[in-house]
Amino acid sequence: MTDTTLFTVNNLWILVAATLVFIMHLGFSTLEAGLVRRKNAVNIIFKNVMILAIGLVSYYIIGFSLMYPGESWNGLIGFSQIGLSLPAGESIGYADGNYTYWTDFIFQAMFAATCCTIVSGAVAERIKLNSFLVICLLFVSISYPITGMWKWGGGWLDQLGFYDFAGSTLVHSVGGWGALAVVYLLGPRLGKYSGKRINPIPGHNIPLAAVGVLLLWFGWFGFNGGSVLSADPDTVSLVFVNTALAGAAGAIGCYFCTGYLFKSNDLSMVLNGILGGLVGITAGADLMSPFESVIIGVIAGVIIPFSVVFFDRIKIDDPVGATSVHLVCGIWGTLAVGIFGSMAGVAQLGYQAIGIVSIGIATLIFIYAITYIVKMTMGLRVSEEIEIEGLDIKEHQIPAYHDLSPA
Amino acid sequence: MTDTTLFTVNNLWILVAATLVFIMHLGFSTLEAGLVRRKNAVNIIFKNVMILAIGLVSYYIIGFSLMYPGESWNGLIGFSQIGLSLPAGESIGYADGNYTYWTDFIFQAMFAATCCTIVSGAVAERIKLNSFLVICLLFVSISYPITGMWKWGGGWLDQLGFYDFAGSTLVHSVGGWGALAVVYLLGPRLGKYSGKRINPIPGHNIPLAAVGVLLLWFGWFGFNGGSVLSADPDTVSLVFVNTALAGAAGAIGCYFCTGYLFKSNDLSMVLNGILGGLVGITAGADLMSPFESVIIGVIAGVIIPFSVVFFDRIKIDDPVGATSVHLVCGIWGTLAVGIFGSMAGVAQLGYQAIGIVSIGIATLIFIYAITYIVKMTMGLRVSEEIEIEGLDIKEHQIPAYHDLSPA
Amino acid sequence: MTDTTLFTVNNLWILVAATLVFIMHLGFSTLEAGLVRRKNAVNIIFKNVMILAIGLVSYYIIGFSLMYPGESWNGLIGFSQIGLSLPAGESIGYADGNYTYWTDFIFQAMFAATCCTIVSGAVAERIKLNSFLVICLLFVSISYPITGMWKWGGGWLDQLGFYDFAGSTLVHSVGGWGALAVVYLLGPRLGKYSGKRINPIPGHNIPLAAVGVLLLWFGWFGFNGGSVLSADPDTVSLVFVNTALAGAAGAIGCYFCTGYLFKSNDLSMVLNGILGGLVGITAGADLMSPFESVIIGVIAGVIIPFSVVFFDRIKIDDPVGATSVHLVCGIWGTLAVGIFGSMAGVAQLGYQAIGIVSIGIATLIFIYAITYIVKMTMGLRVSEEIEIEGLDIKEHQIPAYHDLSPA
Repeated sequence: MTDTTLFTVNNLWILVAATLVFIMHLGFSTLEAGLVRRKNAVNIIFKNVMILAIGLVSYYIIGFSLMYPGESWNGLIGFSQIGLSLPAGESIGYADGNYTYWTDFIFQAMFAATCCTIVSGAVAERIKLNSFLVICLLFVSISYPITGMWKWGGGWLDQLGFYDFAGSTLVHSVGGWGALAVVYLLGPRLGKYSGKRINPIPGHNIPLAAVGVLLLWFGWFGFNGGSVLSADPDTVSLVFVNTALAGAAGAIGCYFCTGYLFKSNDLSMVLNGILGGLVGITAGADLMSPFESVIIGVIAGVIIPFSVVFFDRIKIDDPVGATSVHLVCGIWGTLAVGIFGSMAGVAQLGYQAIGIVSIGIATLIFIYAITYIVKMTMGLRVSEEIEIEGLDIKEHQIPAYHDLSPA
Repeated sequence: MTDTTLFTVNNLWILVAATLVFIMHLGFSTLEAGLVRRKNAVNIIFKNVMILAIGLVSYYIIGFSLMYPGESWNGLIGFSQIGLSLPAGESIGYADGNYTYWTDFIFQAMFAATCCTIVSGAVAERIKLNSFLVICLLFVSISYPITGMWKWGGGWLDQLGFYDFAGSTLVHSVGGWGALAVVYLLGPRLGKYSGKRINPIPGHNIPLAAVGVLLLWFGWFGFNGGSVLSADPDTVSLVFVNTALAGAAGAIGCYFCTGYLFKSNDLSMVLNGILGGLVGITAGADLMSPFESVIIGVIAGVIIPFSVVFFDRIKIDDPVGATSVHLVCGIWGTLAVGIFGSMAGVAQLGYQAIGIVSIGIATLIFIYAITYIVKMTMGLRVSEEIEIEGLDIKEHQIPAYHDLSPA
Repeated sequence: MTDTTLFTVNNLWILVAATLVFIMHLGFSTLEAGLVRRKNAVNIIFKNVMILAIGLVSYYIIGFSLMYPGESWNGLIGFSQIGLSLPAGESIGYADGNYTYWTDFIFQAMFAATCCTIVSGAVAERIKLNSFLVICLLFVSISYPITGMWKWGGGWLDQLGFYDFAGSTLVHSVGGWGALAVVYLLGPRLGKYSGKRINPIPGHNIPLAAVGVLLLWFGWFGFNGGSVLSADPDTVSLVFVNTALAGAAGAIGCYFCTGYLFKSNDLSMVLNGILGGLVGITAGADLMSPFESVIIGVIAGVIIPFSVVFFDRIKIDDPVGATSVHLVCGIWGTLAVGIFGSMAGVAQLGYQAIGIVSIGIATLIFIYAITYIVKMTMGLRVSEEIEIEGLDIKEHQIPAYHDLSPA
């Protein structure tokens, strides 16, 4: 550390960024709560709160050591220790880094739980609480950190040349693949599909969902901006501009697309358009010009309505559109690194594809396997009776709202 | 740049401040959604989300270049380029500044959209969606940046001696004048005024409105604090103190005023009192002592109820009180720079008045003209049938809340 | 000041932390609003908004000078001046400090009002508005700063060796004792206790309460992180890790405890478990290892359900569980400094106990006395008629929600 003051600034920014990522959990909670029916709102919030708690503690116990093991077996898997401790012979501030060991942990820990929050929306309104929490525990403490190590921990994809700045693949599509695996084993909500008909099940509180999306965008400035891993003025400020423009362009792309195709102004679609744009820019937020960010965002915004329709056609019932936002736009954003920006090229596009496919397969297999085991042992789905009456009353003995009709 | 580390700190603060200003858009959205009827809640949120998206992208395309053109014709108008690019011969960090080019843009871009968000509240519950978005596009990309250039871009008002620290006039009263022009051409909501009677139309979700006001206050620390344009400890900390005290004093002034005059404890009035205090301190937050900030805030808080009554008397139907908060208290705050603080004086008061009047007239004419053209071509107001049934179902095919009565 | 840039960084962090503490007032408002009945939601928000305003202004007028008087009479009481002014012969930045005089004030001022916000939840749904505000005014401007001075202002407890990093005792248990005194004189809500039966009165909006808790956690990173009083990388990052893990562990401890004891998944209990963990780590967030923070949090999470049941048994009707969270876990966290971490020891445990008891007695006596006087003069409790019909309509002439049933 030659410059203590610069170290202090860099470290401070990562901590502030971690705080911003933290609030994304409130964003996910309110978004998902708003998009489910009132009878399941307490349940979805309960899950998201518990995921956050389990995510932080389990990432502390083993996740962080799996994701940043230092040494690994062929870049595939490694593990340093149970819990946190200072690397031998080093002070709390890394000798050659921009932030302390604790800062490193807390920024990564805030990320970890998000992959499960993505799943919770997709499986809402019919999964058993404790079964879901077991799946999440294994996802966040084993699966997510191992595939994450492949790139961010210096593993084989990193050595190959795969690039994923802040996690279009490592966080978002991983969450999306996980969601897909669980939804497949879980099945759609009762009454969602009757023969070829798709019955819309509208969310119960759209303003709450909108609060969630704007909180997510707010937190994304920390998610992407903190991923610079320093307060470097040039890079952080470019990342901010790109994050703002891609989200905005996602809304605009979706607005025109749904207005033209469906002749509608569907707020929940436009909100997902924003999220799509944000997921889309996440892999290359430091590589793109503002103009390229607008293009990437617009395309993500156009993808969203098509993807939502597609998943409904194949009867993947995802109440909040998480697979469209995080999986499909996560793939799009990862590929965009090979198409736009300072790393664009055919070889890079190939690396990006390898990263998407390998991480996708690994996550699908792992989450499918543990979900299958959970299904066979604990059971995966609540009874029809509970699903019809709602999980709030049956599993939590409390309704989300009480006595809301005017006095 | 002699001190890279200090540059990094200054730049970081402006980025964090931009993030805080960003969340003000959520504040406006929830405040306005809470104060309209449930049948129009989705519509107002849809507008605010689209304004934010349109504001960011259009400010990127032309707004920023109109507001900070470098050179201008007599300090009245100038334009540098389409989109963003680095000034010729300069690195991304300005040679003599406190932040990078991208940081400069993103902080200003977050501000730009707020002027339209002010309008959206005032015209709520009866304006056509696409007509409104066209007006906003022209407001945020042409009108707001040109009048903004007059002061912040080094234009004629800046040369004259007019002072507006963070935008009591350039942002808030500009939004207020725009609101006034559109409301005048739009007319009041059905049933608001019957003969001489004023029929109150209560907001549908007061807690949501309160969330909005506290988020706005939260963001205001970035709005005012970031306007220091560096992390200078003395100035930023004084601005924080003044922003906190003026908002608090606004609440207290309004509490006593409404308690004495109306014998009521009207929460929505006190919330607007806070906002009035914040708008009031915005023009001179760096010039005032804490004591002067309290006085400015108290007066703003007292102004609010009188102003709300006044606009209702002249049948300007503003569902959220935006004209009282942003126009009237924006004028008050701008004049206060000539009355209190380190720049007080008769000559300064004159400059302040010239700034208020010139920017007011320019904005009124521009917004009136484009709104008139929109009214003649696209139409301005939804049909009576839509207004009665609510814009949510008719324009968005979705209610804000679904199935909210207890199971 | 040898290093201006380091001073700028430190100062900036305290200001950002103050902003985070500010948003805790929104957290308290929404938590408490969600946990009361709909007929009193406007009232509780009105109170919290006014407390914030009164707290900031009265702390400016006398509170800050009582809490940091410079010199005091035997470490018990002191007072420097009315309002703020620069210490004689000093520039705005303290010669030997890490932040300016204004920064010092605003960070402390954001804390001050929280002690009353803790009370407001406990006395919800039956206290008279103006009586409550008078009690708060005296609490925040006289009682809280004097007991606060005993430790943070260099008073007798500080000299003794008592330790309270960010206020488990000085802020949280002080608020809890105040709540206890007022609730005792106020009595339970109508219908809460009938003979030996305890009738649950469920909150009206659980998602709103959850929003509150996650905003509080978010703000706690500023509450604890800012209490380092510099941006020192090692300490601030450790405090962040401990704050995150203790909150998470509180949720997990409470989840297992309520699941085992009550066979239920009670969201409001788990939310209070998070808050309990956060209050528990607050006294020693800079002293603990991450592992110790997890232990402290788990224990706090287990304490919560027992404490809630206990207070109901002794007929202390606290609608939001504020006494359990802030008083009981505040005591626990303060004692934990003597049990865990780098200061643990029997002597320290004794100092901690002395601090808890002395501050508890002083606060109880003061708040009991002023509440008693208010009860005898202004009256403390609304009429039965108002309590039954709800304070929103009767004291504020407005319902929290209007026309919420589907169109």
